[in-house]
Amino acid sequence: MLSLDQIKDLSRQSPSKIVLLVIDGLGGLPRPDTGKTELETAHTPNLDLLASEGICGMIDPVSPGITPGSAPGHLALFGYDPLRFTIGRGILEVLGIDFDVKEEDVAARGNFCTIDRNGLVTDRRAGRISNGKNAELCKILGNIVLNDAELYVTPVREHRFAVVFRGDKLSGDVSDSDPQQVGLAPQTVVPLSPASEKVAKLANEFASKAKVMLSDNHPANMVLLRGFSQYPDLPTMAEIYKLNAAAIAAYPMYRGLAKLAGMKILDTGTNLEDEFDALVRNYADYDFFFIHVKKTDSTGEDGDFDAKVHALEEVDGLLPKIIKLEPDVLVVSGDHSTPALLKAHSWHPVPIILCSKWCRPDHVREFSESACLSGALGRFPAVAVMTLAMANALKLAKYGA
Amino acid sequence: MLSLDQIKDLSRQSPSKIVLLVIDGLGGLPRPDTGKTELETAHTPNLDLLASEGICGMIDPVSPGITPGSAPGHLALFGYDPLRFTIGRGILEVLGIDFDVKEEDVAARGNFCTIDRNGLVTDRRAGRISNGKNAELCKILGNIVLNDAELYVTPVREHRFAVVFRGDKLSGDVSDSDPQQVGLAPQTVVPLSPASEKVAKLANEFASKAKVMLSDNHPANMVLLRGFSQYPDLPTMAEIYKLNAAAIAAYPMYRGLAKLAGMKILDTGTNLEDEFDALVRNYADYDFFFIHVKKTDSTGEDGDFDAKVHALEEVDGLLPKIIKLEPDVLVVSGDHSTPALLKAHSWHPVPIILCSKWCRPDHVREFSESACLSGALGRFPAVAVMTLAMANALKLAKYGA
Repeated sequence: MLSLDQIKDLSRQSPSKIVLLVIDGLGGLPRPDTGKTELETAHTPNLDLLASEGICGMIDPVSPGITPGSAPGHLALFGYDPLRFTIGRGILEVLGIDFDVKEEDVAARGNFCTIDRNGLVTDRRAGRISNGKNAELCKILGNIVLNDAELYVTPVREHRFAVVFRGDKLSGDVSDSDPQQVGLAPQTVVPLSPASEKVAKLANEFASKAKVMLSDNHPANMVLLRGFSQYPDLPTMAEIYKLNAAAIAAYPMYRGLAKLAGMKILDTGTNLEDEFDALVRNYADYDFFFIHVKKTDSTGEDGDFDAKVHALEEVDGLLPKIIKLEPDVLVVSGDHSTPALLKAHSWHPVPIILCSKWCRPDHVREFSESACLSGALGRFPAVAVMTLAMANALKLAKYGA
Repeated sequence: MLSLDQIKDLSRQSPSKIVLLVIDGLGGLPRPDTGKTELETAHTPNLDLLASEGICGMIDPVSPGITPGSAPGHLALFGYDPLRFTIGRGILEVLGIDFDVKEEDVAARGNFCTIDRNGLVTDRRAGRISNGKNAELCKILGNIVLNDAELYVTPVREHRFAVVFRGDKLSGDVSDSDPQQVGLAPQTVVPLSPASEKVAKLANEFASKAKVMLSDNHPANMVLLRGFSQYPDLPTMAEIYKLNAAAIAAYPMYRGLAKLAGMKILDTGTNLEDEFDALVRNYADYDFFFIHVKKTDSTGEDGDFDAKVHALEEVDGLLPKIIKLEPDVLVVSGDHSTPALLKAHSWHPVPIILCSKWCRPDHVREFSESACLSGALGRFPAVAVMTLAMANALKLAKYGA
């Protein structure tokens, strides 16, 4: 693989447009009674048409056998080696809520949780309180005054919030307070390097003050913090690919990932159709679009095979909106597999279609895990997807004399 | 690929069990008159059944075009990058004979050989003397007293023995005395770095004293030494994968390789059936088993196509003993190809089957070089086999947030 610097040298701006449709958790596993995966079960005439006209294959988001989290899965699709660029959970959360993170900020993911009289965690998610309750409690916690740092507490969804510590010379290299299981007390945050002693103190101060303030708020009577992290220094897609890139994603985390790559976040409603309409509305103004489909992943994580099939059919039904735009390059794939049978992200490779005027076609006539196996793209690392898209958009110059 | 440290962070202990059946020298080449390889010629209904139920592919033990020795072939299957972890021949020999090697020991592989009156080698293997004769001669050589080091001379098989030098600050970075062809004299061992001068002296002292002691023992009237080496520092499979791993191998070298990876060596008889019975007997006590099949490689090296076919059929006939145990993950592959037509290890990729409840099946219905080409695993480096096995055993956590 070329380095990002090498790709930067080869990339050229041009009017051609690339659309990357990421169907989150796309890949599945066959249901034993039918022998067919979610994608093989779904009626997807438009995806099948794209598979026929384009070129297909299978991608490994991180490496064979490795189950990717959302961040490495997306970073790979955006062209960043997920083994080199790692993103902390806290940063991911705050990026997704349009929080304006500064370079020295330390962010953590927070959970409202329930503790019993002995201080032991009985529910790590405080019964998944409502978004309204969450906002109300975050407002209360935002009043905490810390010794020597500013504090921002922002609701995310249900029991989840983000906390940001802002001050001089902060380093986020500290342990989690979340014990990751019930029956244990929240842990003391410990510095993992000398530079991060201050943040450990701040985190512990915040947690102990939160405990006092939340004591009457059962089931949300305590907080758990994890994934302390700082803003990673990624070169933007504008720098690497000379792309004017935009992202359309209803869910916070995916907007956050797109922001990391320097994409402009476009306004969208929360439905898939809203997202596709946002693409149509903004199509003239950018030359790269990332569109994120969430429901295929969440239904997979719920173990709801039929709902995932339905979510795939919904994508297929809306696809003509994209096809009509006639992008020079259209890539359809996923950030990882989420088989309903596993109810979780998995290590299985992910089917991919790449459509462009310049692809050498193959014999794949249907978009499915088994059909894509014999596609002309073969099996390859997801980090190469952007290079292929750029090539097919005729945006990459020749390498070497 | 993830580093071993990264895999260590993701690996989880669990009750699921992995069986890795290594059919040494598995891959072959088609006999011109039939157009079929050894594996394609053999009647292997059980392997074909596994291929149908599981997922198939082709592995490159080291890298395309590279012919692996036994050590790199096995290390790759155990998850160690064979380009990073290299094992000296001497260490390999002593590990396989249950010799308790110390960190600073220097070990070499020895051959009894025949020299003529002029001191030139006429047979590098001394007519492949019997194991009994070998033991007798090793006892004699063990009486040699060296200046400033302890000496251990231990028989391996036929003409092969191992020699270990034990002393202070020994370094094994020296040349071989084995000229690798007849008609030449045994070479003087030369230090390849200043730190290894002492070992070069010891080796030459040993060889000249052995020459005197063996002078009446034609055809075993001299020794040749090669592969001087020291114990490599490999993280164990327990450390990396949190596996309680066991090895079943009738041949010394393969037990040695398994020991390097920290596997427990199980008692077994020398027949293949003994090995499979050892698996059944010990199945409850470990969560990873490596079973080694030797005859497929030795028949290949002998150039005996039919005997290799027969050896493969023998494996197939015994396979139900493993299948009945219902391991969560069963991997069947080889450490390299040994085509009877080449009478040697070769660079050809090796077919592989992986069976688990969680594999996305493919259309391969027979275990053969040609059928595995279109398997869902594709073609991939053997070093990824362990990661895939761990993933399918649900023993790997998600990578990244």
